[in-house]
Amino acid sequence: MKIGVLGTGAAGQTVAEKLIALGHDVMMGARSADNEKVLGFAQRTGGRAGTFADASAHGEMVINCTRGDTSLAMLSGLAAELRGKVLIDVANPLDFSQGFPPHLTVSNTDSLAEQIQRALPGTFVVKSLNTVNAAVMIEPSRVPGPHTVFVSGNDQKAKGKVMDFLRSLGWQSIIDLGDITSARAAEQLLPLWVRLYSALGNNAIFNIAVMEA
Amino acid sequence: MKIGVLGTGAAGQTVAEKLIALGHDVMMGARSADNEKVLGFAQRTGGRAGTFADASAHGEMVINCTRGDTSLAMLSGLAAELRGKVLIDVANPLDFSQGFPPHLTVSNTDSLAEQIQRALPGTFVVKSLNTVNAAVMIEPSRVPGPHTVFVSGNDQKAKGKVMDFLRSLGWQSIIDLGDITSARAAEQLLPLWVRLYSALGNNAIFNIAVMEA
Repeated sequence: MKIGVLGTGAAGQTVAEKLIALGHDVMMGARSADNEKVLGFAQRTGGRAGTFADASAHGEMVINCTRGDTSLAMLSGLAAELRGKVLIDVANPLDFSQGFPPHLTVSNTDSLAEQIQRALPGTFVVKSLNTVNAAVMIEPSRVPGPHTVFVSGNDQKAKGKVMDFLRSLGWQSIIDLGDITSARAAEQLLPLWVRLYSALGNNAIFNIAVMEA
Repeated sequence: MKIGVLGTGAAGQTVAEKLIALGHDVMMGARSADNEKVLGFAQRTGGRAGTFADASAHGEMVINCTRGDTSLAMLSGLAAELRGKVLIDVANPLDFSQGFPPHLTVSNTDSLAEQIQRALPGTFVVKSLNTVNAAVMIEPSRVPGPHTVFVSGNDQKAKGKVMDFLRSLGWQSIIDLGDITSARAAEQLLPLWVRLYSALGNNAIFNIAVMEA
């Protein structure tokens, strides 16, 4: 599948390399096409390099791995390139300006995913994978047991495509939390994630499992 | 142990009855001493009935099971009765005025537990058990597997007492999230809890397990 990966940080690099390994036609997008990290990715993996707009146009499915505090402004300019496509929003709206632990820049009665969906009404935004570290996103078996990943979005068919995609990454326990407003719940897990990261001795390779009677 | 249970709702009743069964000397507190539910509790279980102030004075340990939107105002008047004691805060600051799912009345950069700690500087506030249904609080084995409960508080000794108390209820996986500001993380789990409740078919007997590599 043609996939666009937006963002060149740890999440973008990790996800894009995994998708290359799975045989997808991946273009990584950055602010500018001559960005060193995106060129390095292309050279290292044989994948494609481009701008955010190029990668959005390239992908049948597009994954937002940009920083949560910059995602909305960047994506708002890509309505044409992303129209009719599934956009998986992996970003978290974290503000580290007050130090660690960060707080959320939007929460409780709104979420980054909802802001993005409002900015891109012709795109099928699905929040997912934002609750785990990049290494766990693409290789869930690194954490033992049947731990859980969530999806939130307004379109069932789009969520179905994302769930198939998640299964291709190795995810077994996938819970549909509801429409895009349920992304509030997934994003509000981040404050717990950062506390657990500390409590577990700065171990990022963990996740939660939903256990029911 | 002498324990005060504040609140006569599902959480208060369930917790107080369990503590009676475990052999504790329990007083349930309500707004007025002639409250029907608190008198019913005393009649049914042989426990004690009183006001919020009576139950706070009675307990060596006190558990706040009142509704999150009324807890702070009520507890603020009990500084004398609660001085030097461990107060387990089980409440969640949920606002159902806009319907289901509820949002939080305080979150992200503050929490109900912190508000209570500020109002009661002489009390050792420990946030715990707020992330599960009352039936799971007192009988964690109803959910299969080694699922997790959290503690947050400023005083290690107080948290140690609460962890002992949790073990006496059957909890095996207990994670110390940090000081009282980490209660933000535990309270911000509630938006996920209510979404999972719906996603699991209105099943409240569930919890999350923290799984690490």
